[in-house]
Amino acid sequence: MKFCSECAHPVTLKIPPDDTRARFVCDHCHTIHYQNPKLVVGSIPVWKKDGEVKVLLCRRAIEPRHGYWTLPAGFMENGESTSAAAMRETVEESGAHIELHELYSMINVIHVDQVHLFYLATLLDLDYAAGTESLEVALFTEAQIPWDQLAFQTTIQTLQFFFEQTKKSDQTTPFKIYYSDITRSRHSA
Amino acid sequence: MKFCSECAHPVTLKIPPDDTRARFVCDHCHTIHYQNPKLVVGSIPVWKKDGEVKVLLCRRAIEPRHGYWTLPAGFMENGESTSAAAMRETVEESGAHIELHELYSMINVIHVDQVHLFYLATLLDLDYAAGTESLEVALFTEAQIPWDQLAFQTTIQTLQFFFEQTKKSDQTTPFKIYYSDITRSRHSA
Repeated sequence: MKFCSECAHPVTLKIPPDDTRARFVCDHCHTIHYQNPKLVVGSIPVWKKDGEVKVLLCRRAIEPRHGYWTLPAGFMENGESTSAAAMRETVEESGAHIELHELYSMINVIHVDQVHLFYLATLLDLDYAAGTESLEVALFTEAQIPWDQLAFQTTIQTLQFFFEQTKKSDQTTPFKIYYSDITRSRHSA
Repeated sequence: MKFCSECAHPVTLKIPPDDTRARFVCDHCHTIHYQNPKLVVGSIPVWKKDGEVKVLLCRRAIEPRHGYWTLPAGFMENGESTSAAAMRETVEESGAHIELHELYSMINVIHVDQVHLFYLATLLDLDYAAGTESLEVALFTEAQIPWDQLAFQTTIQTLQFFFEQTKKSDQTTPFKIYYSDITRSRHSA
C-alpha cells in the first residue's frame, strides 16, 4: 500500500495514537488503513460406495501451485456466510453437487495471514466437471491420493485427519474438529 | 474506496475478466482491490466456584455500542493465529489471566462482512482490570447478566448457548460448537 484509497495522498507506516501496531496511515485525511487476515473456505466432498471412501480433488488451473491437486476452496466473499462460501467454491471449481455438513478443520496459515476452513460434505452424484479454475477433477481413495502433488499444507493436513478419523471403527467417538497452526511450509500455504 | 492504493489513480467498480463480482479496479495500473470478510475473535472467560458459574464481561469504552457490555473480542491481526487473537483481545480489554480451550461459537454476521469466533476459557484468578477500550470489567451469573445492555447479537447468542449447555446435567453430551448466521439485527453486529 502506497497511497490512501480515500484521498490519493501518500500513506506512512506508523503506529497510530491508542494503538500498538504499525498501520498505513494517510498523512492528509488521517484515515487508518487496517489490514487483517482473510478466510479461505472449502469442502471435503466424500463419496462412499461398497465400503470404499473417496474424496473429490481438483487440479489447479491457476497460480499459486498451478497443476497441483487441492480440495475445492477459495477466498470467502463479502456478503456470504462461511458455509455459503464452501458451497460456492465447491461448485465453481468442481461442478459437484454436494450436501454440506459440519465444520471439519480450521487451520491458521500465519505467515500468509489466512485462516482455512473446510466443511465435511457428501457428494450426491458423479456428475461433476472441472470449472474454469481447475484442469481436472477426480475421485481418490486414500491410497490413490497423489500426496506429493497436493497444492497446500492445509489440504494435506485435512485429508490426513479425515482418513485417520474414517478408519476409526468406533463410531461413538465424538465428532472432533481438526485445529492446526502453520507458520512456514514448503508450499505457499 | 475511491483511489488505487498502488498508483493513486481513480478506481472503478466493475466485474473483472474471469470474475463474477464487481471489484474496485484501477483504470491505470489494473490492480484489482479485493475486499473480504474480517474475523472478530474473543473468549468466554469462565469462573466456577461453589457450584456457581460466572462469566467475565467488559463494558465498552469505544464505539460502536459505547457503554454496552460484551465478551472480550476484537479484530484478528495479521501474523497471529485465531487462538492468539482470542488471548490478546481478552488481555487487552479485561486484563484477565485465562487458560484458553476449544472454539465454542462461530457466527457469521453477514450484513457487516464479519465472522465472529469465541473460545471457551477458564479465568485463572480474580486479578482483572479494565483495559483502555473498557469502562469496567465484571463477573456475572446468568441471572445477573444485563441482557438488554449487551452490545452485540454474537455476544447474546454465545452467552445463551453457553448457559444452556452449562445447565445440561449429562456431562457425557459430546462437545458441540454453536453455529449461527446473522443477517440483520437491532445492533451493529
